[in-house]
Amino acid sequence: MDFRPVLYIQGILLSILSIGMLIPMLADMYWSNPDWKVFFLCIVITAFFGGSLILSNAGLEFTMNLRQAFMMTFMSWVVTSLFACIPLALSGQNLSFTDAFFEAVSGITTTGSTVMTNLDKAPPGILLWRSILQWLGGIGIVLMAMSVLPMLSVGGMQIFRTELSESEKALPRTAQLASSIGAIYIGLTMLCLLAYLLAGMGKFDALNHALTTLATGGFSTYDASLGHFHSDAIELLCTFFMIVAGTPFILYLKAIRGNLRPLLVNSQVRMFLLILSLSIATTTTYLVTTQDMNAYRAFIGATFNMTSLMTGTGFASEAYDQWGGFVIALTFFLMGIGACAGSTSCGIKIFRFEIFLSVIRVQIQKLLHPHGAFVAHYNGKPIPEDVPLSVMSFLFLYAICFIALALALSALGLDFITSLSGAMTSISNVGPGLGEVIGPSGNFSTLPDSAKWVLSVGMLLGRLEILAALILLHPSFWRH
Amino acid sequence: MDFRPVLYIQGILLSILSIGMLIPMLADMYWSNPDWKVFFLCIVITAFFGGSLILSNAGLEFTMNLRQAFMMTFMSWVVTSLFACIPLALSGQNLSFTDAFFEAVSGITTTGSTVMTNLDKAPPGILLWRSILQWLGGIGIVLMAMSVLPMLSVGGMQIFRTELSESEKALPRTAQLASSIGAIYIGLTMLCLLAYLLAGMGKFDALNHALTTLATGGFSTYDASLGHFHSDAIELLCTFFMIVAGTPFILYLKAIRGNLRPLLVNSQVRMFLLILSLSIATTTTYLVTTQDMNAYRAFIGATFNMTSLMTGTGFASEAYDQWGGFVIALTFFLMGIGACAGSTSCGIKIFRFEIFLSVIRVQIQKLLHPHGAFVAHYNGKPIPEDVPLSVMSFLFLYAICFIALALALSALGLDFITSLSGAMTSISNVGPGLGEVIGPSGNFSTLPDSAKWVLSVGMLLGRLEILAALILLHPSFWRH
Repeated sequence: MDFRPVLYIQGILLSILSIGMLIPMLADMYWSNPDWKVFFLCIVITAFFGGSLILSNAGLEFTMNLRQAFMMTFMSWVVTSLFACIPLALSGQNLSFTDAFFEAVSGITTTGSTVMTNLDKAPPGILLWRSILQWLGGIGIVLMAMSVLPMLSVGGMQIFRTELSESEKALPRTAQLASSIGAIYIGLTMLCLLAYLLAGMGKFDALNHALTTLATGGFSTYDASLGHFHSDAIELLCTFFMIVAGTPFILYLKAIRGNLRPLLVNSQVRMFLLILSLSIATTTTYLVTTQDMNAYRAFIGATFNMTSLMTGTGFASEAYDQWGGFVIALTFFLMGIGACAGSTSCGIKIFRFEIFLSVIRVQIQKLLHPHGAFVAHYNGKPIPEDVPLSVMSFLFLYAICFIALALALSALGLDFITSLSGAMTSISNVGPGLGEVIGPSGNFSTLPDSAKWVLSVGMLLGRLEILAALILLHPSFWRH
Repeated sequence: MDFRPVLYIQGILLSILSIGMLIPMLADMYWSNPDWKVFFLCIVITAFFGGSLILSNAGLEFTMNLRQAFMMTFMSWVVTSLFACIPLALSGQNLSFTDAFFEAVSGITTTGSTVMTNLDKAPPGILLWRSILQWLGGIGIVLMAMSVLPMLSVGGMQIFRTELSESEKALPRTAQLASSIGAIYIGLTMLCLLAYLLAGMGKFDALNHALTTLATGGFSTYDASLGHFHSDAIELLCTFFMIVAGTPFILYLKAIRGNLRPLLVNSQVRMFLLILSLSIATTTTYLVTTQDMNAYRAFIGATFNMTSLMTGTGFASEAYDQWGGFVIALTFFLMGIGACAGSTSCGIKIFRFEIFLSVIRVQIQKLLHPHGAFVAHYNGKPIPEDVPLSVMSFLFLYAICFIALALALSALGLDFITSLSGAMTSISNVGPGLGEVIGPSGNFSTLPDSAKWVLSVGMLLGRLEILAALILLHPSFWRH
């Protein structure tokens, strides 16, 4: 295999990463925190590697075959995680390499699980770096879901090929598409920042939370997460922007170009909002009827935390795992569902459930009319023949990986709810788990190092849509 | 819809049930227990309804269309459960109707969850009735999986159509096939009975446990289940017969007719034994290394209890939920897998995992060679085109039903592990759950009535392979 195009892309990504490190360096300089030297060193290292990779592999015709594309996808997340963890490991936070790598993976995959305690007193540079990592990861996910995964036919994502080519008619190139989406991402982040400022957040907090909200990341500048602010306005604004971030970004592009209809009638968005509304409604009802909670408080709490979990953001306003057994079970499953493909969120994603429901409807009709001809539909169009099995393989591998992660975590000594919710939160890139240890009031810092590595693998697996990682383990990938 | 053929079959099943009630009646008469009057009354009622249904619907040409076959499948389990619960409700055990129905469903679906406490002092009639229910349910499952489900194309079971027709060449009719399988079932039960007697079990206990072992049912005559006997020999014999009962019975028929090869090379059986061996090996290793258990004890305990869970029998020899987090997580997932289709066991069943793995192998090859032609295989033959999606729909519905059951149980106030393991044990027809309440040392008697109804629905859903129940809810089933 010719690795040069793959390395060239890694060079570009590392260069972007090194530019990203400028911001926390400037912040630490401004607030006179000695960590700025760490960031300076990391910028030099990262830019050096990035630049070298670009220069040594430039000038090639920019075409990639399937293997190279898979390799590029896999390496992009692993290599950036490795370089992103250096500032965390070298900073004054005394993080071990394991902790730094876990935190970096959790950042770049927009998971939001954290091993850092005392965030309220952490220096601005490190806090900003965590937020920027998630923000960069977020746009990376959107672009990957729009350009690379459909071409690789990973887990049914080929169904979005048409969507892409449709918009490509109006847009000459993928690069231009990427920059349009990037502009929308920046615009939405600034809107979110503005909203947080108007709702009374401080500038630094507003910037950090805007970055991690649009990324559906969930890193916060406080141990109490968004609950620190005790503000319904902030929680509702955050809910709105998490939903915005959980919607396919291509629909915003179409809307800006004057075609609002795709956004309004998209079946994935509708199903996302339907499942979310049902979850909020049942949780609110449950809280009011069984936990004697005030209806208004129950509604705000359910709205914010259910949205945060379903979009895989992972902010928390309260210890929702104290809300009774039903909420624990519901959030556990909700974490796996995720929001829309083509957004910054993770998990199984809504369109796969839609395809499944459509296939099952057809299957049931076939049971009754074995000789009838029925066609499954998605978003108003017939589902291409190869998609259902592709989606099915994805879901099965998702389940297998979830089970393997849960078994590994339990073998390392974690209890039932920590193992299961840890596996779920990592593979779905949510953030907090459930239970006393890693729940919304807990933290991943107390886990054994081995468990942190298992969870890091889970986060990367989830972000790579399982198949883009596992395919590298298949012997025929390496065969000529 | 013409209900007459459906009702005719119900009549036959109720007549069989009433004959089954003779045995506990005779037992109670022999041991002078007043419950014999209850059984006598129930025999009269059941035989009356059964006979009436036969007489009023006899003389029809015995053909069924698809709808009637689905209706028959569904009604067979519900109607027999209803009549089977009458002796339980009227006996001296003071069971409420809810408890009696739960126990009857748990019996006839060969689940083995029990709401009865103080089994050690229960009268012989009731104990025998529970065992006979499981035994009848067991043969019902084998026959349903061999004759009805493949014709209905439920959950990929159509893959066994060929297997059936192959053996049909040698056997003139389905009825003759059924009686051959029945003879094998009786023969194996008698072998098991003999083995238990030789291992030192009392006659009454040996009969009961032989009936519930071959049915992979799991009802015992003691609260401590098979652990009561403290006998390694009994546990190992039981393990052997549970594996026998978890193997497709058609393979025994072929073996008896001189063709031993299908039994020896069957991929489903091999995968079953492979997963089981791996589970036993990892559990033993885990128990020895982390729980400081003696290697011999660990091996015997793991062998017996893992086999019991995977085959969905549900006997227990010890409180394996005290064996640490890994065993809890492993048993949780193992319960869902189940043993082979065409055996008396339940759960997702091995062949569906094989089909999945085969499909995924092809999918991965397709990712790398989009224009290549690859065909998925099962048991050495290409998988028919309609099977993978059928299996996929089954698995998805299984997951959805599991989630719905778990959410319902948690909404009724059950804790996380009780809700999840309760949902899993009911839909997979295993028996005990996990945790303090319904775990191997616990009992279902303390659950609220509402939870018992949810679990009863789960057991029936699992036994009906989900689709044969849910299809009745589909509007097009009732449309002309």
